[in-house]
Amino acid sequence: MAQANVTQEKRILSIQSHVVCGYVGNKSASFPLQLLGWEVDAALTVSFSNHTGYGRWGGSKFDAAHLEDVFSALDANGLLRQSHVLTGYVPGADALKVVVRAVDRLRAINPSLVYILDPVMGDDGRIYVSESVIPIYKALLPRATCATPNYFEAELLTDIKILDATSLQLALRTFHERYRTPNIVVSAVSLPLSELVKLGFVDAPALSTSSSTSRMLVCAGSTLLSAPGEPLKTTSFGIAFPELAEHYEGVGDVFSALVAGRFPSASDPAFSDHPISPLARTVELAIASLQGILAKTRQHALSLAKGRADLIVPREGESAEERVRRLRTVELRLVQSQHEILNPDVKYRAVRFSGI
Amino acid sequence: MAQANVTQEKRILSIQSHVVCGYVGNKSASFPLQLLGWEVDAALTVSFSNHTGYGRWGGSKFDAAHLEDVFSALDANGLLRQSHVLTGYVPGADALKVVVRAVDRLRAINPSLVYILDPVMGDDGRIYVSESVIPIYKALLPRATCATPNYFEAELLTDIKILDATSLQLALRTFHERYRTPNIVVSAVSLPLSELVKLGFVDAPALSTSSSTSRMLVCAGSTLLSAPGEPLKTTSFGIAFPELAEHYEGVGDVFSALVAGRFPSASDPAFSDHPISPLARTVELAIASLQGILAKTRQHALSLAKGRADLIVPREGESAEERVRRLRTVELRLVQSQHEILNPDVKYRAVRFSGI
Repeated sequence: MAQANVTQEKRILSIQSHVVCGYVGNKSASFPLQLLGWEVDAALTVSFSNHTGYGRWGGSKFDAAHLEDVFSALDANGLLRQSHVLTGYVPGADALKVVVRAVDRLRAINPSLVYILDPVMGDDGRIYVSESVIPIYKALLPRATCATPNYFEAELLTDIKILDATSLQLALRTFHERYRTPNIVVSAVSLPLSELVKLGFVDAPALSTSSSTSRMLVCAGSTLLSAPGEPLKTTSFGIAFPELAEHYEGVGDVFSALVAGRFPSASDPAFSDHPISPLARTVELAIASLQGILAKTRQHALSLAKGRADLIVPREGESAEERVRRLRTVELRLVQSQHEILNPDVKYRAVRFSGI
Repeated sequence: MAQANVTQEKRILSIQSHVVCGYVGNKSASFPLQLLGWEVDAALTVSFSNHTGYGRWGGSKFDAAHLEDVFSALDANGLLRQSHVLTGYVPGADALKVVVRAVDRLRAINPSLVYILDPVMGDDGRIYVSESVIPIYKALLPRATCATPNYFEAELLTDIKILDATSLQLALRTFHERYRTPNIVVSAVSLPLSELVKLGFVDAPALSTSSSTSRMLVCAGSTLLSAPGEPLKTTSFGIAFPELAEHYEGVGDVFSALVAGRFPSASDPAFSDHPISPLARTVELAIASLQGILAKTRQHALSLAKGRADLIVPREGESAEERVRRLRTVELRLVQSQHEILNPDVKYRAVRFSGI
């Protein structure tokens, strides 16, 4: 006899990996969300000692049967009462199919469910999940309220190579057209300064702080305004910030969690008053928190490396032992960044894209 | 080739269960510790949908091989660098043996390791682990810096039935004598008021607030002062607070986490200046946070039950469905109790036991 599931506000089901040490998946997502006042129901897709970038790890993946068993028990106990769901790394196609059913069940219980979908498939040209998950993500996307692919995942899902201002905007547009996803945030696209100017970053403060690099990262967001059948209408924007030389794991997972945790609430005027869009406000806050976390992490990594900036940057020919030492050094300083998570200092503002 | 493990301050390995919804094990421990600034490396002993009190749950226990695999990988990656370790629910003897080896390895790396051992075996006269774990806990106790049994676990480990002031103090003494554990905290013993007076609670504020109940709970702590071979010398104390009619799961796990998170630091004068003992200061703060969390949880449960106090208390003949509904209602309000965790208001003070 199943219990009635009664939706609660600010309760999120976060379906991602678990690691004992360090920050990826639910380890990246749970604490920031909890700090922001969310009840976080963390369903685990793997239980590992550390992220796999270390090259060595212990533990195991959970199979589809495990996830199915967990979601069935939650349902029977009336515990599928989340207002939001966030999905991240799911290791295989069968497990991802179970996630699809869980999302459908949650939406049947709560038609206004907000679903933040991070289609974790790969990065920097490399796919690190089974290729069989790609069609399932394509089937999931029309169910999402907001998708948060990185640039490579956006390319995989739109079949558009993002190289410049035009292809970035075309990718956003294609995402809406193909999947009808109401909100899209492409977390970070590396573009030359000349392309940023085309996007409307004329005298953004970000440009003047980037003297050390000729490339900037742009986080691009877009909200669908038109109904199905109408000509496509969107509001899209970008936020530019300097690219760091270091590589930090789990940053995308913190980002999608912050997007979920600060997703526009219809009742909050701080969002509806934003000059571009409510989503732009969400992303400005998420980027600001993340920049704060990364600044703290970088500072700590440098102190561990006794100031030697070269030791915290991946280098060609790095040995396995050197890589492990570097990865330990650059684990995110989430717990130490409570102020940055709660009170982000928005330095990088959204700029409206004029469209293509 | 193993990496060197270099111990870091305020980093704790917490070996406990995981549940998706609700608060027991690592779900109870992680957030309060993180909020207090700890790096929490959460190693999982089970991954369940919810705690087993619901009667139905999904997921699985991790076996000894999984835990061994996780700890070996952490070691190989130089990630066994915790200053503290906290162990809670471990489902079976084989898994617990792996935990013993992990603690030994951690202490070999860091001789000043602080080990908070919650010997989770049962409650209220009922054992809920395999009986084969009892001898392993007895072998673990001499390794612990502090043990946090509940009254029933203290009885199992000392073979003393705790009924009154004398037997409580005898149990503390026996614990030190038998296991040489330097610090013991028995989380909550229900005693009649007459026995509290014998323990030294003459005009403690707790007594005057207990008009609604004839019984009080006493949290009792003791620190060993004498070296092996010398006559036993201890400083012991109690903190009395009113017993609640409701039953909240996971309270013991929050308590042991708060004891770990606020365990006396030699360098902190707030602890060494306490009139009874540094441990008394730790426990006062832990009890104060917990009372704050419970007050918030009770208030929320009552609002969910539309003010009907009878619906949040277990009752004779409760059906399975009623129990599930009640358990959902009384899940701890940890995320909403950040102020209570960070800034506990100490209302119940420690009273020194005169000894037996």
